[in-house]
Amino acid sequence: MTAFFTSSAKVTDRKSLATQDQQGLPPSDSREQVSQWLKSFQDNVCKGLEKVDGGGAFKQDSWEREEGGGGRSRVLSNGKVFEKGGVNFSEVWGNDLPPSILVQRPEAKGHSFYATGTSMVLHPNNPFIPTVHLNYRYFEAGPVWWFGGGIDLTPYYPFEEDVVHFHTTLKNACDRHNPHYYPTYKLWCDEYFYLKHRNETRGVGGIFFDYQDTSGVLYPISYPGSQMYTPAANRSAEAGPVENRSWEDIFSFVQSCGDAFLPAYTPIAEKRKDTPFGERERDFQLYRRGRYVEFNLVYDRGTIFGLQTNGRTESILMSLPPLVRWEYDYHPEPGTPEAELYETYLKPQDWVNWKK
Amino acid sequence: MTAFFTSSAKVTDRKSLATQDQQGLPPSDSREQVSQWLKSFQDNVCKGLEKVDGGGAFKQDSWEREEGGGGRSRVLSNGKVFEKGGVNFSEVWGNDLPPSILVQRPEAKGHSFYATGTSMVLHPNNPFIPTVHLNYRYFEAGPVWWFGGGIDLTPYYPFEEDVVHFHTTLKNACDRHNPHYYPTYKLWCDEYFYLKHRNETRGVGGIFFDYQDTSGVLYPISYPGSQMYTPAANRSAEAGPVENRSWEDIFSFVQSCGDAFLPAYTPIAEKRKDTPFGERERDFQLYRRGRYVEFNLVYDRGTIFGLQTNGRTESILMSLPPLVRWEYDYHPEPGTPEAELYETYLKPQDWVNWKK
Repeated sequence: MTAFFTSSAKVTDRKSLATQDQQGLPPSDSREQVSQWLKSFQDNVCKGLEKVDGGGAFKQDSWEREEGGGGRSRVLSNGKVFEKGGVNFSEVWGNDLPPSILVQRPEAKGHSFYATGTSMVLHPNNPFIPTVHLNYRYFEAGPVWWFGGGIDLTPYYPFEEDVVHFHTTLKNACDRHNPHYYPTYKLWCDEYFYLKHRNETRGVGGIFFDYQDTSGVLYPISYPGSQMYTPAANRSAEAGPVENRSWEDIFSFVQSCGDAFLPAYTPIAEKRKDTPFGERERDFQLYRRGRYVEFNLVYDRGTIFGLQTNGRTESILMSLPPLVRWEYDYHPEPGTPEAELYETYLKPQDWVNWKK
Repeated sequence: MTAFFTSSAKVTDRKSLATQDQQGLPPSDSREQVSQWLKSFQDNVCKGLEKVDGGGAFKQDSWEREEGGGGRSRVLSNGKVFEKGGVNFSEVWGNDLPPSILVQRPEAKGHSFYATGTSMVLHPNNPFIPTVHLNYRYFEAGPVWWFGGGIDLTPYYPFEEDVVHFHTTLKNACDRHNPHYYPTYKLWCDEYFYLKHRNETRGVGGIFFDYQDTSGVLYPISYPGSQMYTPAANRSAEAGPVENRSWEDIFSFVQSCGDAFLPAYTPIAEKRKDTPFGERERDFQLYRRGRYVEFNLVYDRGTIFGLQTNGRTESILMSLPPLVRWEYDYHPEPGTPEAELYETYLKPQDWVNWKK
């Protein structure tokens, strides 16, 4: 989630920041621009969510990282709509990027780095409101820089109009920048948020991307985990190249993604928040939350890396649900909404063209 | 936990089973002897636990593994004493051992293997009864064979007499075989069941061992994770060698460990099962169960390996608690029993000599 780095560090030397081509050069105030936006994004998201909640308020913990940087973690607990919500901003720097990140960007090896991001997970009270996760981040390290992030939705009960609305809002945000973005990043999201041991997607996906720079490669085929779901052959058509993107183009795209969050999610929360529910729906919600825990602790690279390398544990694990249930060998009854979730919603689907 | 292997397979060729020395040769019916004992051990444990529970009964699922072997999973749900308990037996064979296991036994590479084990996790209702985990297992692969396993206790509330009783019972079982066993395996257990990201042991430990054969090495220094806690220098004195152990000696030791389970644990469950408790104790129990989930999904090699390689997910994750709570940035109030747990019980301690 938030706290990716731990190595002892000093601030990245900007002079070592060369780029792939002329257009790849970030502006001299790149870090300030991005971190400033990520902070105001955190502010806006928290304000928007408090409005939806109509009761709860985010509480902030500011923290500093001994090796360089820090963050502000914000948690809303036991709200009227949100049982638990966390929105974290962090900005860290150090001497060495972790090996897991260097696999994709070996040029960064031996260089100091700068990283900043805002991430969020919301666990609503009402089982008819989906859980949602979001993360946008930016790195600079020696001669390279890149943007990454995404957003994905995890419903407990199936409402196709909600899922279509969510995906359509994201697609519109993507399409304003490049027609390749939505299909590529939607596929990447389906592949990344996949629980192999359950043969289920985490939810209905959304968009996910990483290592976005001016190289023109949208979806690196060798991305760890990228071949979990879709055969490489089916992906290559979407993988680019996309020519002539500048730093500003990509940053602007990430901002559009961020701006799309409240319109993509809050109408769903508003529509479902007063729907009555009983023990059955609550039980199923708690059971399905178990999958969220399984994904974050078994597969999510940010979470695992953070835990194993002395990140701020409480910020990293803020993503875990407040109450979770496991049940041995549970199977939904055929013909129920619970069964429909498994049959239709926990598989990759073409949501923007759903039943058109 | 249970289902370690997935590769396609046929039965191990016994003729390839050579051993380190004369005494290292297993009897011709080694597999039958061990699997027979592990099954009757499962039977005895289930009977003993049903007696303690005084209400619940284990239900069995038998399963077969396509590539060779199978198991019987037993679950007790919503008992009077045990909220959830799982006791699994499995016996599998195949063509290739997974790489993670070959690190310690490279001689097994390219040979077919046989593996059998019984494992157990109990999650009691009453927060004054500790959770307990146990696993004993046996492998044969090409020229090598070994026993592994252990047992560890995870209390929610501190009762030093319970912990001293548990450790003393294990020590007595070990001491009947070799005075080096208890101190070595107790240390190994403290190191293995350690949550680095929390700087806590999972509980008060017990004993843990792996790769036990006639090589005379009790505790291989290079065991993955073995240096998490204790500096190698402090461990080497305990690591052996122990000379002249036969296959029968080690099997007999493992049987003594198994026999020690009911006497080590059930008196604690009996003593605490009627102690009244309220919301505070229940809340703390659910919160602490989160650590169990974190350990099993982030660190436990058997669990992670099983999940990533198509083991029987429901048997592997039977270890997860029925209901779990996460709370952002929780800290116990100083001077409370909850604080005492953190201060004293979530660190390695010399329990058999406690306050003597």
